[in-house]
Amino acid sequence: MQIMCDQTSLLTLTNKPLVIVLSGPSGVGKDAVLKAMQRRGLAFHFVVTTTDRPKRAEEVNGVDYNFVTTRRFEEMIRDNELVEYARVYGDYKGVPKIQIEDALASGKDVVLRVDVQGAARVRQLFPDSVQIFLVPENETQWYQRFRNRRTETEVELERRMDIARDELKLVNRFDYVVTNATDCLEQTVDRIAAIITAEHLKVKIEP
Amino acid sequence: MQIMCDQTSLLTLTNKPLVIVLSGPSGVGKDAVLKAMQRRGLAFHFVVTTTDRPKRAEEVNGVDYNFVTTRRFEEMIRDNELVEYARVYGDYKGVPKIQIEDALASGKDVVLRVDVQGAARVRQLFPDSVQIFLVPENETQWYQRFRNRRTETEVELERRMDIARDELKLVNRFDYVVTNATDCLEQTVDRIAAIITAEHLKVKIEP
Repeated sequence: MQIMCDQTSLLTLTNKPLVIVLSGPSGVGKDAVLKAMQRRGLAFHFVVTTTDRPKRAEEVNGVDYNFVTTRRFEEMIRDNELVEYARVYGDYKGVPKIQIEDALASGKDVVLRVDVQGAARVRQLFPDSVQIFLVPENETQWYQRFRNRRTETEVELERRMDIARDELKLVNRFDYVVTNATDCLEQTVDRIAAIITAEHLKVKIEP
Repeated sequence: MQIMCDQTSLLTLTNKPLVIVLSGPSGVGKDAVLKAMQRRGLAFHFVVTTTDRPKRAEEVNGVDYNFVTTRRFEEMIRDNELVEYARVYGDYKGVPKIQIEDALASGKDVVLRVDVQGAARVRQLFPDSVQIFLVPENETQWYQRFRNRRTETEVELERRMDIARDELKLVNRFDYVVTNATDCLEQTVDRIAAIITAEHLKVKIEP
């Protein structure tokens, strides 16, 4: 017999959907973690970031990013359609408000993948957002991830690593820190899942 | 090949042992949850409560409780050997300080099972303690648990239920609330395990 365990409680527990921010320095593997979360079949709404940067060969429009023209992106900025946006290495990246609002309205948790600067802006709009900072296991792994992209020159790569090292110092702005080691992606997902479970069990004092 | 995933991180993460308080109204099944956590083999130090109440037939001294005489208990109170103690339904129950200190010193998380009043006192001594409030699924299940003890008269049982209903109102003093439904004990343990995992991943700002 299947026992249904996701049950009622003698207390009326508020269980509002969460805004979950997945962030961390460049090259930590945010995209890989997000994909592993999707594969695991966790019940979230994943917000697709909009960008004007060129699509990489392996990327899918609407899945990896929403790829738009620079002109369209600047229109979205002007019309205040974005929760946050940033120009990173010359490319725009931003999160459309409508996606978050629609998901929350339907009662689903929302997961956003944003860079460290973006996370701070999401915090302003959603002070209760659960902000998770991914960190690399060590410099060697981290450097390897940058190299594997093969989209940069050596000089560009060094510049990005320097910026990423600075981003690492912003860990204290976040609620949780999860080490994302190469070959341990499933552990990373386990930990993120535990964080989300725990956040839903927090006692919320209603005003 | 076995990959060791409990790994180092590029950031030096403080990972201090936690004081975890398992509480909730009488009859919610605190003891059963604690036993299920032990069966699961989770790596905690379980603090055994000391009491002067008579041992029930199925209980084991040193495992379920440390059973002592009233005289010895009052000596422990006088000598300030207890983190907290309370007289509940005429019986003393208390938590010896030495057990918590020893466990924390060895780097282990400590789990305490205490009543709702005891949890407040533990909070004073350990402000960072993680306090989990168990709640029953519904009145019927709850009443049944009280009855199953078969240690009380009907009048005594009603009196205890009334006190327990009052205890339920103190949920807002706690950090997390977990519904402990009959037949869903493993889900209760899953959730407590998630809370503990998440608490270890919290960003702690070092002074």
